[in-house]
Amino acid sequence: MSTDGVVTIGLLGCGTVGSQVVRMLSEHGDDWVARSGARLQLTGIAVRDASAERAPWVPRELLTEDAEAVIDHADIVVELIGGIEPARSYMLRALHAGGTVVTGNKALVAAHGPELHDAVQAGNGNLYYEAAVAGAIPVVYGLRESLAGDKITSVAGIVNGTTNYILDEMTTKGLGFEEALAAAQALGYAEADPTADVDGHDAAAKGAILASLAFHTRVGLDDVPTTGIRHITAADIAAARADGNVLKLLAVAQRTADGVSVQVRPTLVPQAHPLAAVRGAFNAVVVEAEAAGRLMFYGQGAGGAPTASAVLSDIVAAAGHVVRGSKAPRESAYAALPLLDPEHVPARAQVTVRLADEPGTLAAVAGIFGDQGVSIEAVRQPRVAGSPGADVIITTHTTTEAALARTVAGLEAEPTVDRVVSVTAVEGY
Amino acid sequence: MSTDGVVTIGLLGCGTVGSQVVRMLSEHGDDWVARSGARLQLTGIAVRDASAERAPWVPRELLTEDAEAVIDHADIVVELIGGIEPARSYMLRALHAGGTVVTGNKALVAAHGPELHDAVQAGNGNLYYEAAVAGAIPVVYGLRESLAGDKITSVAGIVNGTTNYILDEMTTKGLGFEEALAAAQALGYAEADPTADVDGHDAAAKGAILASLAFHTRVGLDDVPTTGIRHITAADIAAARADGNVLKLLAVAQRTADGVSVQVRPTLVPQAHPLAAVRGAFNAVVVEAEAAGRLMFYGQGAGGAPTASAVLSDIVAAAGHVVRGSKAPRESAYAALPLLDPEHVPARAQVTVRLADEPGTLAAVAGIFGDQGVSIEAVRQPRVAGSPGADVIITTHTTTEAALARTVAGLEAEPTVDRVVSVTAVEGY
Repeated sequence: MSTDGVVTIGLLGCGTVGSQVVRMLSEHGDDWVARSGARLQLTGIAVRDASAERAPWVPRELLTEDAEAVIDHADIVVELIGGIEPARSYMLRALHAGGTVVTGNKALVAAHGPELHDAVQAGNGNLYYEAAVAGAIPVVYGLRESLAGDKITSVAGIVNGTTNYILDEMTTKGLGFEEALAAAQALGYAEADPTADVDGHDAAAKGAILASLAFHTRVGLDDVPTTGIRHITAADIAAARADGNVLKLLAVAQRTADGVSVQVRPTLVPQAHPLAAVRGAFNAVVVEAEAAGRLMFYGQGAGGAPTASAVLSDIVAAAGHVVRGSKAPRESAYAALPLLDPEHVPARAQVTVRLADEPGTLAAVAGIFGDQGVSIEAVRQPRVAGSPGADVIITTHTTTEAALARTVAGLEAEPTVDRVVSVTAVEGY
Repeated sequence: MSTDGVVTIGLLGCGTVGSQVVRMLSEHGDDWVARSGARLQLTGIAVRDASAERAPWVPRELLTEDAEAVIDHADIVVELIGGIEPARSYMLRALHAGGTVVTGNKALVAAHGPELHDAVQAGNGNLYYEAAVAGAIPVVYGLRESLAGDKITSVAGIVNGTTNYILDEMTTKGLGFEEALAAAQALGYAEADPTADVDGHDAAAKGAILASLAFHTRVGLDDVPTTGIRHITAADIAAARADGNVLKLLAVAQRTADGVSVQVRPTLVPQAHPLAAVRGAFNAVVVEAEAAGRLMFYGQGAGGAPTASAVLSDIVAAAGHVVRGSKAPRESAYAALPLLDPEHVPARAQVTVRLADEPGTLAAVAGIFGDQGVSIEAVRQPRVAGSPGADVIITTHTTTEAALARTVAGLEAEPTVDRVVSVTAVEGY
C-alpha cells in the first residue's frame, strides 16, 4: 500500500474533531515520521457540503463530496461523520477492501460492532476506535492491550461529560436539573436536544464497548439496561450529600462466574471513592482486575482537541502497521460469556420508603427485605419537621437485581408503606 | 521461532513477581491463546539456587541455575532478577540474538536504556518494560502508544509507593518520619535498608524512563536531580495541611521550547489536585498533553500480583508479535531534546524564612525576591506563641531553578534574616 514511506489518509467528516485532526496532522508532521516511521499525507476530506465555511487551516483543495473516492484512495480512512448511515457503509467498504479504519463513532461501534469486526476478519484489515470511548483517555488501549495479561472483573465509568457536568453543578451549586441542563447548553456541553446524553444512551453505547473489550466478549447496545438523570432532583442530590455520597451517572460492567452484565444508571458513590472526585465534564473509568487490583484512568472525555488526540494516536499506530505490513491486535477469540439474567446480576441499592407513621411499621419493612434474602447494611430515619409521614432510608448489602425488584414490589404491596420514594443504585456491589 | 502456535517463555528470577507470573501463566492458559493467538509455554526458570523453597505451584523440573540455557531456548525472555548485573548481560545476550525481552527492571532500563535500545535495533528484537514503572498502571503503554498522537508537555507522578505510604501516614496520623518508616517496614512496604525508596533513587529511575517515553528523547538517571523525604518532619506536614496542601514525593518531567528537565523532590500539592487524593502505597501519574489536556493514570504501583499483571500484558503483546512475525513499536527516532540548564528549568517554591523581629525586615526580604525577578504569589506570617523570631512563608509564582537558588543565597546573606528554614517545591510550575 505504502510507497516511499508515505501513508495516505482520507478523512470522512470535518467538524469539531475532524478539523482538529487536520490541524494536528499538518502542525506536527516531523513528529509523525519519527513515531510511526511514515510520512502521513492527507489525501482527501469528504464532507456533505464542500462549499461550506471551514477552519482556515483546512486545505480547500482536498474537500470533496465524493466519500467513496476518498475511501478508495487512502491507506487509512478516518471516519468522523458520526451516526449510523452512511458511516456504516463507508467503514464496511474500507474494511472489506482490507483497509484500515480509525473511528470515533461510539454509536456505530456499539450497535454494529460484530458486523465491523467480521468485516475486519473478512478483509484482513484493521479497526481502531480509541476516540469512541472517553475522548482522550486511553481506556480502549488500556483494556485491549495493557490489561491483556489480567482478568478484569469490573469496569465502572463516568463516560458522559454532559451528565457529569449537570450532576456536578447540581451538587456544588444546589441547582435543579433544568437549570443545570440550561447551564450545560449555554457552555456547549449539552446539545439543544440533550436526549442522547441525559437519558443515558451515549453512556450505554460506551458501556457496551467497554464490556466487550474488558471481558473479551460481545455486548450490544440492547444488552444495557439504561436509566438517565432527567428525574434527579435537587432534593436527591442533597440527600446523597447528607449521607456522605455523591450521585454520579455510572456505566457499570461486571463479570461473575456465571456471565456478564452492563448497566447505566445514577449511582451513589462514597465521597472517598476516586470517582466521586471527578468534576465538571471530565470522565474517568475504574477497572478492577484480579492481579492488577484497582486502576483508574481519568481525563477529558469529549471536545475537539482531546478527541482528535485519540484519533491521532490511532492513526500513528495504524500507520506503523501499514509501513511494516503488520496487523493491529484483533478482537479476541471469544469467551462468548452469557449475559446474566436479573437473578444473577449483583446489585446494591438505597431504598427510600415513606411510612404511615404507626408503631411497628419499620419491623414490617425490614421483614420484607428479609423475606427476599436481601441483607440490610444500614437504616436511617431522618426526622423532617412538618413532613406528613416518616421516610426511612435503607441501604442494602450486595444482592441481586431480581431480589431487589421483588423487595420493592413487596414494599409497594405493604399496607403500612405509603409509597416507595426512590430506589438508587449504590457503588460497590 | 514459533512452531505450531507455541511461544516459549524463559523466566529469569522467581521471587515475589516471578512466582506470580508462573501462577498466572498456568491458571489462565486458554485466555492467553485467545488473546495472543499463541499457546504460552514456560520452558525454563533460572534461579540462583535451584534447591531453595518455592511457591507450591512452581514446577520444580523447570528450575535451573543455567540462565544462558534458559535464554537461548526461549522466544520470550522475562527478566525479573532486578539490579544491574547479571540482568544487563542476560538481556543484551537475548536482544543481540534477535529475541524478545520483557522486564520489570527500572534501575537497569533507566541506567542502561540507550544500550538496551541499541541492542534492540542491532538484533532486530523487541523490548517491553511496562512493569518497570508504576506496577500495574499502564503508563508505559499510555505514553508510548496511546499518546503517540499528541505532544506531551509535562508528566508528574507519585511513582514510589513506599514514600507515598510514609507521607500519607505522617499526614493522616501525625507520625514522625521514623515512626512512619517503621510502620511501612512492618507492613513490608519498605525494605530493611530503605535508601532506594526514601532517598528518591527509585522514583528518579522511573522519572528518567517516563521523561524518555513522554518526550521521545533519552534521559538518564544522572540527569535527574533528586531529593528524598528523610528530612521531612511532622511540623512540615502540619504546615502544609494548614495551607490546604499535601506533601507528596513527585517525579516531575517538563518540556519547554528549550528542552526537557526531570526532578524528584517533596512537593506541595493543593488538596484539590488529583495527586493529593492518592493514598497509601498507591501510585498515580498525571500527564499534560497539548491536545488531550490533563490525563491521570492511577493504581497499585508495586506488589507481586499487580507487577505480574503488567509483565503478563507485555508477554501477551510480545507473543502476538512472535506469532505474526511482526515487531513491537520501537523507541522513537530521536527528537534529541537538550536537558535544560537551571536558568531555564521552570520552578515554583514555598520558602520559609526566620526573621530577626525588627520592623522593615519583610520589605528587605521581598526586595531580595524582586532583585532576582522572582514574583511573589503570597506571603504569610503565622503568629506562633512562644516562638523566638517570626517565620514568614513566601510562595512564588513560576520562576527558574537558578533564580530561586540566587534568591535563597541572597536571603542567607541578609543580616535581618536569621535563617532560611526550608525551600519546598510547589506543584504547578
